[in-house]
Amino acid sequence: MFEILETKASLQQDNDVAANDVRQYLKSHQVYLVNLMGSPGAGKTSVLQRIIESLKDRYRIGVMEADVDSDVDANAIASLGVKVIQLHTGGSCHMDARMTEKGLHALGIEDVDVVFLENVGNLVCPAEFDVGANLKMMILSTPEGDDKPLKYPLMFQVSDCMLINKIDVKEVFGFDTAKAKEYALALNPHLEIFAVSAKSGEGFAAVIGYLRQKIEEQS
Amino acid sequence: MFEILETKASLQQDNDVAANDVRQYLKSHQVYLVNLMGSPGAGKTSVLQRIIESLKDRYRIGVMEADVDSDVDANAIASLGVKVIQLHTGGSCHMDARMTEKGLHALGIEDVDVVFLENVGNLVCPAEFDVGANLKMMILSTPEGDDKPLKYPLMFQVSDCMLINKIDVKEVFGFDTAKAKEYALALNPHLEIFAVSAKSGEGFAAVIGYLRQKIEEQS
Repeated sequence: MFEILETKASLQQDNDVAANDVRQYLKSHQVYLVNLMGSPGAGKTSVLQRIIESLKDRYRIGVMEADVDSDVDANAIASLGVKVIQLHTGGSCHMDARMTEKGLHALGIEDVDVVFLENVGNLVCPAEFDVGANLKMMILSTPEGDDKPLKYPLMFQVSDCMLINKIDVKEVFGFDTAKAKEYALALNPHLEIFAVSAKSGEGFAAVIGYLRQKIEEQS
Repeated sequence: MFEILETKASLQQDNDVAANDVRQYLKSHQVYLVNLMGSPGAGKTSVLQRIIESLKDRYRIGVMEADVDSDVDANAIASLGVKVIQLHTGGSCHMDARMTEKGLHALGIEDVDVVFLENVGNLVCPAEFDVGANLKMMILSTPEGDDKPLKYPLMFQVSDCMLINKIDVKEVFGFDTAKAKEYALALNPHLEIFAVSAKSGEGFAAVIGYLRQKIEEQS
């Protein structure tokens, strides 16, 4: 069953080299990169809109919207008045470090402080590829179920923080927040967890505080 | 941006050969294979439970539960008293035809009529790999949003039928069923669409009728 994984192994090595290039490039320009990941429909774009609204007066923000196809999300983000670029992955299920590097060049990072990369909607593949980001933020939405850490462990292991989104409708789906946290923390004891609703804005003050602290630490 | 896609191209050719092997193998045993796909948390296992309950008195059913890791879904299915096997993809984000062939051998198809493959939760990668199934069934759940056909077109293009699941909570998420259908049918005019709720059972009579017809046509 492991034919594909062998192919992936060499891709991974190339990617690690490229991820280091991205890190150097970001450092030389004093830019902070956040890699935002989650399933299709978890609420990545809505969460990003909330975050941008709260941070855009403090930092110059750039956004890279990665999609297999379509410009739906880039249009939504552009309306907030920040710099945005749409990346089409040409069918690929994730962003890798080289794609990210090209995206950063195309976006232009001379006049930004923080860049958000909205990765392809996928709870599996993006977790495997270090894109050179300073922070890996993942979203788990309550309709997906509290058992997802058991089934897609790598995403929870590699992330720095997790937003449990659509917390306002958790009862509808019998989502057990304590259980989700327990599963996730068993995989990654350092994971910072926030319960939020991108719809109502609930829980975002803590997320914004956390992000500001992380960005300031870096600079 | 296309380094990975070139690698994929040769993988795809190998996979097409293997998919034909699977088709021959199924045909020689008069077994019907359904490839069930959708995002994490779309409700693949719950939908499968509903379908099995309605079909298990008519057909001898086997189930292959593909997961990156964990046995959560296989346990849920085994409780229905049908033959089930858990496949661990070892990190891979989709099932391919060779993995499927190995799974069918391990499951043993001499004493079954219909096999369901629950693919890895992913709206991107499984769409790219023909596993040799007779029917491709996809699930889109209402919390994911009605714009998903625009963002993950291939899955909608390759599927034979689509179940819009969690239809009972569509108002909570402002999910516009007509819009989702319109987007999906623009990509694939032959797509059969069913609105269902795996929670309440709503809409499953039509799904079961469709499946029975497809299975009978084949045999």
